[in-house]
Amino acid sequence: MANLGSLVATGASVKVEGLLVAPPVGKKQRIELRLEKVLHVGPVDPAYPIPKTQLSLEVLRDHNHIHLRPRTNMISAIIRIRDALAFATHSFFHENEFRLIHTPIITTSDCEGAGEMFRVTTMVGEGIPQKDGKKIDYAADFFGRQAFLTVSGQLQLETCACAVGDVYTFGPSFRAEHSHTSRHLAEFWMVEPEIVDADIQDVMNWAEAYVKYMSQWLIDKCCDDMELMADKGCIDRLRMVASTPFERISYTEAVKILEEAVKGGKKFDNKVEWGIDLASEHERFLTENEFQKPVIVYNYPKGIKAFYMRLNDDSKTVAAMDVLVPKVGELIGGSQREERYEVIKERILEMGLPLKPYEWYLDLRRFGTVKHSGFGLGFEQCCCLRPALTTLETLFPSQDTQEEQICN
Amino acid sequence: MANLGSLVATGASVKVEGLLVAPPVGKKQRIELRLEKVLHVGPVDPAYPIPKTQLSLEVLRDHNHIHLRPRTNMISAIIRIRDALAFATHSFFHENEFRLIHTPIITTSDCEGAGEMFRVTTMVGEGIPQKDGKKIDYAADFFGRQAFLTVSGQLQLETCACAVGDVYTFGPSFRAEHSHTSRHLAEFWMVEPEIVDADIQDVMNWAEAYVKYMSQWLIDKCCDDMELMADKGCIDRLRMVASTPFERISYTEAVKILEEAVKGGKKFDNKVEWGIDLASEHERFLTENEFQKPVIVYNYPKGIKAFYMRLNDDSKTVAAMDVLVPKVGELIGGSQREERYEVIKERILEMGLPLKPYEWYLDLRRFGTVKHSGFGLGFEQCCCLRPALTTLETLFPSQDTQEEQICN
Repeated sequence: MANLGSLVATGASVKVEGLLVAPPVGKKQRIELRLEKVLHVGPVDPAYPIPKTQLSLEVLRDHNHIHLRPRTNMISAIIRIRDALAFATHSFFHENEFRLIHTPIITTSDCEGAGEMFRVTTMVGEGIPQKDGKKIDYAADFFGRQAFLTVSGQLQLETCACAVGDVYTFGPSFRAEHSHTSRHLAEFWMVEPEIVDADIQDVMNWAEAYVKYMSQWLIDKCCDDMELMADKGCIDRLRMVASTPFERISYTEAVKILEEAVKGGKKFDNKVEWGIDLASEHERFLTENEFQKPVIVYNYPKGIKAFYMRLNDDSKTVAAMDVLVPKVGELIGGSQREERYEVIKERILEMGLPLKPYEWYLDLRRFGTVKHSGFGLGFEQCCCLRPALTTLETLFPSQDTQEEQICN
Repeated sequence: MANLGSLVATGASVKVEGLLVAPPVGKKQRIELRLEKVLHVGPVDPAYPIPKTQLSLEVLRDHNHIHLRPRTNMISAIIRIRDALAFATHSFFHENEFRLIHTPIITTSDCEGAGEMFRVTTMVGEGIPQKDGKKIDYAADFFGRQAFLTVSGQLQLETCACAVGDVYTFGPSFRAEHSHTSRHLAEFWMVEPEIVDADIQDVMNWAEAYVKYMSQWLIDKCCDDMELMADKGCIDRLRMVASTPFERISYTEAVKILEEAVKGGKKFDNKVEWGIDLASEHERFLTENEFQKPVIVYNYPKGIKAFYMRLNDDSKTVAAMDVLVPKVGELIGGSQREERYEVIKERILEMGLPLKPYEWYLDLRRFGTVKHSGFGLGFEQCCCLRPALTTLETLFPSQDTQEEQICN
């Protein structure tokens, strides 16, 4: 039977019967369909807009027909890789007897005071009731008060961890921050486990085990799709991540290494000194130049970290940790949580935060506290272990929101 | 060694070593921990607010300490059941080679024109720019236009199904509708598969297989937790659902059955006649009284269904289907999608919808259309196959949004 491609136009759906066979020697593809019967050929407009030639991600992103992009090799490969990583995530946590919790998306609490939040409302246009002609009267809004999109499910997750044991959440998070980099999306998915009876060492072990598990999963199941990625080094990097013990250094050691590098002539845009938050360039230097493998930095200065992280005995640092990966940067951030009632109360006040919104959170320490730790992983960051390929934003026609962000 | 309960106060965390053994004959519990070593006892405020006595769901919901509720038997059982159903869902679709898609949460498109939508914004208070002193100028908002929370990922999912084959999404959906019933939440999770080369019969098969799979999963893995549910019939009902072929009747047959019932003296609050949308009381009559098992009703009048459902040859009905389950009501709604370009265009115009926002969706029919079908399942509705136990809303302290809705 003739070649199918010569019978039907590009973009048409076909339903055929045939035999999957090894191709003749010398052909590039690994398998070939020996066509036996054409069952159905669907109609297609001859003005099919996606050419058969290979297109770059940038061209696809600018393309007028973004809703047709999943039909390209690269985007469909990314869909399969993302799917594999999601299932690997659920498998990893279920094998280890974690329970999935769907933490709330619409919330009135702000996890860290860290990110700018989106407001959720049903009040529109001229109908917005304003008090004194100025302030919006949120009592008239859907929830009778201001409501926001979640920036993290961690605090709510802790209520469950302190009740049923190890738990995790895997859901969308939101940051209302305009950004020119691929590292910040307005909408992204986060994986956040919370582990009881775990200290900072334990949570580093869990983070490393999880990243290795996902890397191995991709190596085992997705090499064909990985080969379609623009980054030809990604499979080797995955093998390295899966097989190499992560380096672990304290923040203080990390700063010393960076200071030595500066003395040796290395130029950074951001100043290096104890107390700074490590910039992306510092993180990449540590993981890509200094160690050339994943690095976990732990025990950060308390001044640059959230109130809920456990104060170390030096009273200067907290039991926080970040996992840095070559070409990815910070993949995971986590900490041992402050489980001591008096200490965490003091920390909230010290940071100038109000106690009232955190009273329920403090109750988790007051009424039967337990040592626990957790971390968060940005799922887009993790796909392919390469941020440039985090392509939620390239998939959907109505993903205007994400498109917008890329254009800004 | 003495009984642990007499050594530590209620609510304290303990870490112990011991042997799990069968209890002495006559004791109620199934296993007993023979204590050997107490490793750690955490502090607890003696004012621990949750008593040891059994509490009803209603009391827990009104409780001042909702964040401590996961520590009760019933809520922790629901957490485990919900987790099991989520993992069963991912397992079912992966065993059948579906790909998970994270469809966008923030969107500018409205799937069905069906539900009231929440608006997502960063414009606040007195700072809202208004044109002509009246209209809000959304060009100044985060995304440069109005943005909303998704009511369904279906349309976006179709872009992927028409590219990579069978896919599903499992994520939060939102409806800005105040409601007094447990059947409508402002925030809920939805499972939506989209299946290529599938017609209305195929999608009914998939829906039935999925519901049976989840039911069997709970029977196999969660009986201990199911026994803690207030509804003592739930395990028997699950066995019935898992083992009984679902009844399948057309909408026209369903209306006939209801009309016969009315003739026989059955009273409904809502009038029965061909063309109506079936009310909850009608659905329950069909599944609980008439058939006493799950019922799939298919081929609904086109006037009460969405534009994207495939027009049947009678030009009066569309290939839509609902799965009704005793004590649950409508668990699943789905349809074969209209894949014919000219027909769906006509349907959009017929329903008075604008063409422009759906142009990308029409392109999926114009550029290589393929027969496909899908359905949506409300995950809270599905947990325990019993709406009264859908307790996302009871879990979280900052789930004010959900609490609010229950109080309204």
